[in-house]
Amino acid sequence: MSNSKNRDSLDFFFNPASVAIIGASKTPGKIGHELLRNLTQSGFGGKIFPVNPKAGKILGYICYKSIVDVPSPVDLGIVVVPADLVEGVTRDCVTKQVKGIIIITSGFSEVGNKELEERIVEIARGKLRIVGPNTFGIYYAGTKMNATFGPTKVLEGHTAFITQSGALGLALMDWTTEEKYGVSAIVSIGNKSDVDDADLIEYFSSDSLTRSILIYMEGLKGGRKFYEISKSATRKKPIVVIKAGRSKRGAQAASSHTGSIAGQDTVFSAAFEQAGIMRAEGMTQAFDWIQAINENPVPKGENLAIVTNGGGVGVLATDKCEALGLKLTDISTNLADDLKQIMPSFGSVKNPIDITANADDVLYAKVLDVLFRSEDVDSIIALFCQTANIDPVLFAQAIISLRNKENFKKPLTCAFIGGHLSQIAYSTMLEGQFAAYPTAERAVDSMYALTTRYRQLSRWKAEEV
Amino acid sequence: MSNSKNRDSLDFFFNPASVAIIGASKTPGKIGHELLRNLTQSGFGGKIFPVNPKAGKILGYICYKSIVDVPSPVDLGIVVVPADLVEGVTRDCVTKQVKGIIIITSGFSEVGNKELEERIVEIARGKLRIVGPNTFGIYYAGTKMNATFGPTKVLEGHTAFITQSGALGLALMDWTTEEKYGVSAIVSIGNKSDVDDADLIEYFSSDSLTRSILIYMEGLKGGRKFYEISKSATRKKPIVVIKAGRSKRGAQAASSHTGSIAGQDTVFSAAFEQAGIMRAEGMTQAFDWIQAINENPVPKGENLAIVTNGGGVGVLATDKCEALGLKLTDISTNLADDLKQIMPSFGSVKNPIDITANADDVLYAKVLDVLFRSEDVDSIIALFCQTANIDPVLFAQAIISLRNKENFKKPLTCAFIGGHLSQIAYSTMLEGQFAAYPTAERAVDSMYALTTRYRQLSRWKAEEV
Repeated sequence: MSNSKNRDSLDFFFNPASVAIIGASKTPGKIGHELLRNLTQSGFGGKIFPVNPKAGKILGYICYKSIVDVPSPVDLGIVVVPADLVEGVTRDCVTKQVKGIIIITSGFSEVGNKELEERIVEIARGKLRIVGPNTFGIYYAGTKMNATFGPTKVLEGHTAFITQSGALGLALMDWTTEEKYGVSAIVSIGNKSDVDDADLIEYFSSDSLTRSILIYMEGLKGGRKFYEISKSATRKKPIVVIKAGRSKRGAQAASSHTGSIAGQDTVFSAAFEQAGIMRAEGMTQAFDWIQAINENPVPKGENLAIVTNGGGVGVLATDKCEALGLKLTDISTNLADDLKQIMPSFGSVKNPIDITANADDVLYAKVLDVLFRSEDVDSIIALFCQTANIDPVLFAQAIISLRNKENFKKPLTCAFIGGHLSQIAYSTMLEGQFAAYPTAERAVDSMYALTTRYRQLSRWKAEEV
Repeated sequence: MSNSKNRDSLDFFFNPASVAIIGASKTPGKIGHELLRNLTQSGFGGKIFPVNPKAGKILGYICYKSIVDVPSPVDLGIVVVPADLVEGVTRDCVTKQVKGIIIITSGFSEVGNKELEERIVEIARGKLRIVGPNTFGIYYAGTKMNATFGPTKVLEGHTAFITQSGALGLALMDWTTEEKYGVSAIVSIGNKSDVDDADLIEYFSSDSLTRSILIYMEGLKGGRKFYEISKSATRKKPIVVIKAGRSKRGAQAASSHTGSIAGQDTVFSAAFEQAGIMRAEGMTQAFDWIQAINENPVPKGENLAIVTNGGGVGVLATDKCEALGLKLTDISTNLADDLKQIMPSFGSVKNPIDITANADDVLYAKVLDVLFRSEDVDSIIALFCQTANIDPVLFAQAIISLRNKENFKKPLTCAFIGGHLSQIAYSTMLEGQFAAYPTAERAVDSMYALTTRYRQLSRWKAEEV
């Protein structure tokens, strides 16, 4: 099976027994120093060997003059030497029988220096695999390996994030911590001289830590391979792609940025659709979708209910649902009766269900309890407007304890709209592993992602029969 | 002139010499208490008279048994008594020659009780003006009057916010503080039994504190009046509207929420367009647009430049520009030469201008300086990805000091993408009165609002000739 073979063949990038940093530096601020520091401080359990011709010790580790001098086998080499030295280092790594190298160094095909990059690939062919060049490295939560020169702190989670943009990837590493979007892996894929998106999709589709795959892509080589592997991977795990270079000028910019040929955008869109890849418009949408997907089961149908304590947000959310093709269910007589028993007379038991601004957390939890139990409802969007009299954190806690007590398995996205207390409530929900957002629009858009996933799986199931 | 007449006729709602709270309460948590507390603590300089049949003192203020017992004239009455007492109170207010009342009390046309509401309007006709019923009150920064039962703290600024949804309005009062969106006024317009959107637009279009008007609307009575007044007001100040009830089910929900007839959405869209009103999709977009409009001059043309330290975000922003019909200017040879003198050789002087992740704040400021001075560029989108080596706050400070030193008058929107430090940078920019956002998409969308304003003003100018 090519799948497990490929997985084995890339495992040394994520779970190496030993790592050499070729070009390690004593000078704080230099990439060769930051990377070594991150790796040694991240909790990674493998052996670490700094390599630098000036040798000595760096951060307490014995430093070797060359990779070939390292006294034990090396699975993974991380290359941070200047561009003109990379060729020689790659040869040394082949000699040392290193399994894979991450070439951090830039100055290759992305600035037009294609020949040098091709020579290095040629040296490595059949001997070792290459990630890069022109990358900021790899983070993998499973081995607590932070082999990047990015932030020290990364929030562990369930999304494998593959990025072709270095700066964007680094910024988002920080962002994941701030926004509590946990990641199973971050791979700065760089110039994709060898290991490409398809290889990584194949790897992560079999990785038990990874529930979803998120890709920032500018260009693509090997479209057929990408399509075939993605098509099979999306059956197992959702893949969300941000494909930049949609516009003419954007494509030109992508070309001068990473040397990518962005290609015809409509072709990408069609291929993504066919392969079951969900294409997000931008970073916020992509992360919102992933959040909803990671924290929820796939809906069992399309009957959606909205519950709100603010009529206005209920209306806005309903508008957005219709615009996105989400179906608010008609509340059945039975369900309406159940709701009427607990709701204030001036509320609305129509969908969106408006429990009004007077509702407290106890009432809110009761209504959610009814909706969770109802067979008429497949998924729920819960909206909270901060009111003068009730702390939104109480609402958050009510939902969390309801799920913990009853173990409800029904998709829920929610929004907390308001000021500081609402932000705390929203963070509380994220920490409680719910898909929570600061606006109703984003809660709806995330439900759209879940519904899309439901539709994909239903269609594929039907096709199998 | 009807304009100044109407302004005079509503001024007592925002700048009253004296306010009576009819239904003031001693009990914290009750609306009649919260409202009095907010009013007395907000810094409002007018006289305040609590009214309650049980009398005594509340929060140190002498309380009167009836509005007619108050020993001096009363400009504004705020009514928080139960619905069945409002009719009598309105009669008393007429007797007392009160100029306007805000009826906080709910239970009128929004729950089908139209007759009572109409009787009250009849009592008031020609004698006093009514805001409401079913509102949370009025805040006005010019007189520091917080006559609401909402949050105590409101951030002063330059947008008049009119909301038909109470819960949403209250939530957004909190939000404005958290997100640093300052407001000149907040009016919870309620059932619009008398004072309507058009009256308020007319008032705020002449209010010197207000630079822009933001409306959350579910339904509209008197479409022609609204259209005529808006059309004239948008020539002076931008108006952004969030019109809910776009979808069929949303319109039904709006009807059961505020008793509004949402009307045919396409008719609204066409009328807004004709009147020069900018229609936002939701709250985030509306506030983003307003932020850009308040903090920037109107562009002098459509030649837009993007500058970024991250190639990827540059590409994404370019895609979004093209999708929104924003025109990235072709960098002229002269401008390119100026940029090349200061930029690293591996950066790109094409638009988007990519100064690369190695750029520091000094280089960033130099590039912006060139763009601010260039006649080829009418507006700028500045994007910052958080990198490992430079604190994003330095970038923020560099831009702020550049403007403060040179007093550049060119529209700029910017985005800080990253974690905690980027959030601080973004807040620093907001405090420095720049239009700043946490994502590139939002910075671009806000530039779209500025460009739309430019196009409107150009068209109207052409029509005048």
